[in-house]
Amino acid sequence: MSKLSLSMAEKIIDAALAKGAEIGLKPLTVAVLDAGGHLVALKRQDGSSILRPQIASGKAYGALAVGAGSRWLNANAETRPHFVQALNGAAGGGIIPVPGGVLIRDGEGGEIIGAVGITGDTSDNDEAAAVAGIAAIGKTADCG
Amino acid sequence: MSKLSLSMAEKIIDAALAKGAEIGLKPLTVAVLDAGGHLVALKRQDGSSILRPQIASGKAYGALAVGAGSRWLNANAETRPHFVQALNGAAGGGIIPVPGGVLIRDGEGGEIIGAVGITGDTSDNDEAAAVAGIAAIGKTADCG
Amino acid sequence: MSKLSLSMAEKIIDAALAKGAEIGLKPLTVAVLDAGGHLVALKRQDGSSILRPQIASGKAYGALAVGAGSRWLNANAETRPHFVQALNGAAGGGIIPVPGGVLIRDGEGGEIIGAVGITGDTSDNDEAAAVAGIAAIGKTADCG
Amino acid sequence: MSKLSLSMAEKIIDAALAKGAEIGLKPLTVAVLDAGGHLVALKRQDGSSILRPQIASGKAYGALAVGAGSRWLNANAETRPHFVQALNGAAGGGIIPVPGGVLIRDGEGGEIIGAVGITGDTSDNDEAAAVAGIAAIGKTADCG
Repeated sequence: MSKLSLSMAEKIIDAALAKGAEIGLKPLTVAVLDAGGHLVALKRQDGSSILRPQIASGKAYGALAVGAGSRWLNANAETRPHFVQALNGAAGGGIIPVPGGVLIRDGEGGEIIGAVGITGDTSDNDEAAAVAGIAAIGKTADCG
Repeated sequence: MSKLSLSMAEKIIDAALAKGAEIGLKPLTVAVLDAGGHLVALKRQDGSSILRPQIASGKAYGALAVGAGSRWLNANAETRPHFVQALNGAAGGGIIPVPGGVLIRDGEGGEIIGAVGITGDTSDNDEAAAVAGIAAIGKTADCG
Repeated sequence: MSKLSLSMAEKIIDAALAKGAEIGLKPLTVAVLDAGGHLVALKRQDGSSILRPQIASGKAYGALAVGAGSRWLNANAETRPHFVQALNGAAGGGIIPVPGGVLIRDGEGGEIIGAVGITGDTSDNDEAAAVAGIAAIGKTADCG
Repeated sequence: MSKLSLSMAEKIIDAALAKGAEIGLKPLTVAVLDAGGHLVALKRQDGSSILRPQIASGKAYGALAVGAGSRWLNANAETRPHFVQALNGAAGGGIIPVPGGVLIRDGEGGEIIGAVGITGDTSDNDEAAAVAGIAAIGKTADCG
């Protein structure tokens, strides 16, 4: 069984930010949470606005809460808004149900060892940066 | 008058999990609440995600809150979303208004002695497992 | 690295309740949380009062929050009350800082794989039951 | 006017962790907030417990909240506990009033450009690591 170390979290963040720079994204905030939903590392780039730490963490936390990337929450928010609103009530408002919260799995369909949440550009681009970050440590991204 | 004992709650949970295994459901979390809405027993299967205890409890609590299985709340969330949102405000966010929260009644139309909440698979399948759990103690399931 | 399974949590609870029966404790509520602070299993014995699930969980959660058994929190609450009050603010009121929240370690000084919280009798007796539960799965209890 | 950049925050964290390693501290969590009280970067070392991100952030936030290092809050918590409790009420529970939250000033008595919060060892040692981190970017530490 794998466990998400600080060293792994830093590699994920740096690779995600490198991806953002490469494809010309706006300033990003990247949060990496462990499997229990607790922050391991976070970086907010210069120019990334003040609530971004909570948004990035909330995407990652939402993914861990239900065991699916936050794209799944985004889809449910459209088909079953009452369900996603209620989840957020149960979570104390800590879930941001849009793409960009990606589970880190130990292989395809493998154990969840944490999640990455990114915000700052479009949700699709945020997610792409998260996927690049996870690839950098050789783990499998689950976008939901 | 019947009262929900720990022994009854354990039988419900074990039968619900057996049903889940039998019909091939994903890992489940099962919560059993007494008539006052307080947890008697809970089990979260390996691989069931981290917010599942609150989701399972929130389905069961919602059913007890309004005296109807949570399928009734789900229907109201679609026709009268403001009502279900307001209920959740009054409940401090503790209600999950989707199927899978089932009242335990002492006979058809009889007294409410508690509720079961299940989450992990589709809401319909979660509810089926709850019904099986309640049947195992010879009580009547009220899905709403 | 170990991970706390439902099967392990059930063994802990049943052994803790057996210990309570053996030494004549009042009705207990026992909660077992994983390393991330999320409930794996809970049982509330008949006659154990309605807030006991939150008390048992709050002892276990407090221990995990700071990485020390809740007896450590109890000592700090006496010497630095402002610190423990502030911790509870940061934790949304989820910490019960008295003995009876015991870390489950993988060997002496080893990794934390979860925590047990017990309430119902005196805090010292609650803790003794928790220690018995952890011994039943061959892990090391850390009372703080 | 100076502004706290991500690059500066990273240097502070890495220097604080290096100090911790040098003097043999337990695993630390280090948070760096900008002058507005918003997280810029955070690292939680392996083995640092799950509430540590909130504790580290809460020390730094408390310092910014009152314009004095959190050692000042700790002293007030002893002489005027009602004041510090009320501050925390106003702050939504986000203040941890013990040493280890250190203001980053632009020169002695200069402008506040952010704060560092550290937790994991004794409060005095946490503060020493924060001071080392601030020194590494040539700014002035204000411990309160």
